[in-house]
Amino acid sequence: VRTSRTLPTAAVVPAAGRGERLGPGAPKALRQVGGEPLLVHAVRGLWRSGAVDLVVVAAPPGTASDVANLLAEAVPGVEARVVEGAAARQQSVAAALAALDSDTDVVLVHDAARAFTPPDVVRRVVQAVRAGAPAVVPVVPVTDTIKQVGDDDAVQATVDRTRLRAVQTPQGFRRDVLERAHREHAAAATDDAALVEALGEKVAVVDGSDEAFKVTRPLDLVLAEALLRSRAD
Amino acid sequence: VRTSRTLPTAAVVPAAGRGERLGPGAPKALRQVGGEPLLVHAVRGLWRSGAVDLVVVAAPPGTASDVANLLAEAVPGVEARVVEGAAARQQSVAAALAALDSDTDVVLVHDAARAFTPPDVVRRVVQAVRAGAPAVVPVVPVTDTIKQVGDDDAVQATVDRTRLRAVQTPQGFRRDVLERAHREHAAAATDDAALVEALGEKVAVVDGSDEAFKVTRPLDLVLAEALLRSRAD
Repeated sequence: VRTSRTLPTAAVVPAAGRGERLGPGAPKALRQVGGEPLLVHAVRGLWRSGAVDLVVVAAPPGTASDVANLLAEAVPGVEARVVEGAAARQQSVAAALAALDSDTDVVLVHDAARAFTPPDVVRRVVQAVRAGAPAVVPVVPVTDTIKQVGDDDAVQATVDRTRLRAVQTPQGFRRDVLERAHREHAAAATDDAALVEALGEKVAVVDGSDEAFKVTRPLDLVLAEALLRSRAD
Repeated sequence: VRTSRTLPTAAVVPAAGRGERLGPGAPKALRQVGGEPLLVHAVRGLWRSGAVDLVVVAAPPGTASDVANLLAEAVPGVEARVVEGAAARQQSVAAALAALDSDTDVVLVHDAARAFTPPDVVRRVVQAVRAGAPAVVPVVPVTDTIKQVGDDDAVQATVDRTRLRAVQTPQGFRRDVLERAHREHAAAATDDAALVEALGEKVAVVDGSDEAFKVTRPLDLVLAEALLRSRAD
């Protein structure tokens, strides 16, 4: 039992996507790295942060009870709920939001594919929301040169990257702000913070981590395995 | 001896930078991965493409003869010249351009830190220049959500990433275009193609590769070691 002077913080993990760019296989969150599914690594990182009181997972359709058993076994002591998710990410987030306790006041949304996010990133996001920000995203600098291309596949411009940041998760929100954002701007957005931006609410940034990379392409699995081994050393 | 019906293609490798983000140690191009410096991996990839007739390396000051010996030993048969580089990347490129043969008509500029660029990326770039493009860059989609931040560290906008591409190397150029770009726009630019854009010349894109990532941060060394191991399997 975690006791806290504040109202609870819940982390929502939409984990029902296919992950086509990884190639054929299990739903992305259930792909194995180091002998365990990405989802297990992701939930373990959230829980080890000590900043999260409940994890709500939106699992691939038909897998909810298996996923619940998996998490209970792999992450001792975790407070987790598993709901049925959907292929569309926003639907999964909505299903998870509906499963929160009424007194939860801070909500994180975390990609299972950012399975190796260090716990200190989770803590920074929660602290920034508790300090008053309605929405918070962890970011890292953009290290590649970025160019904008046209329909003819020719370069139109080199983008000034000094003001660009690559956005990671968990993204943190005051619960009322996130729920309003999902109600009013449920249309496609690449991340939940963009829904909050559409409300006109301020989105703050905190430092992310290179290790919070998203497992998207086959090469990311190579990195993930290597990172796990380096952490075990 | 490589014979070709066309005039020679040379690859220029500015390799004199420090690489501060990797932490203290040798100049970045001389950091070891899999027991060999990044520069050796980079030159080997260029040479193995079969599309390059000469590699000109701008080495860290004071290391030119050692680097020449290293390359001759590690990349059998390579046609390489080593010149003295400088901390400023554009100065290194200029020093290497000055060492080209007069009949060279296609020039690649390649980061030593993109040491694991697959040879087929090198070939695609050369082919596109030979097919008529004055400048060519290999690119990959941007997979992270990108936001623009203001001076107050608040998010100003989520950038539409469908038209954004992360730019890799080698970048390829008609020699006259690259030399003119360096003469007329030698000021700071994050890549050589940006100098050509400033001339108003068209820059085309070809497909890059995830494996052409730039070794910049400590985690990139973890990936580099793992990638080398997976290629050796």
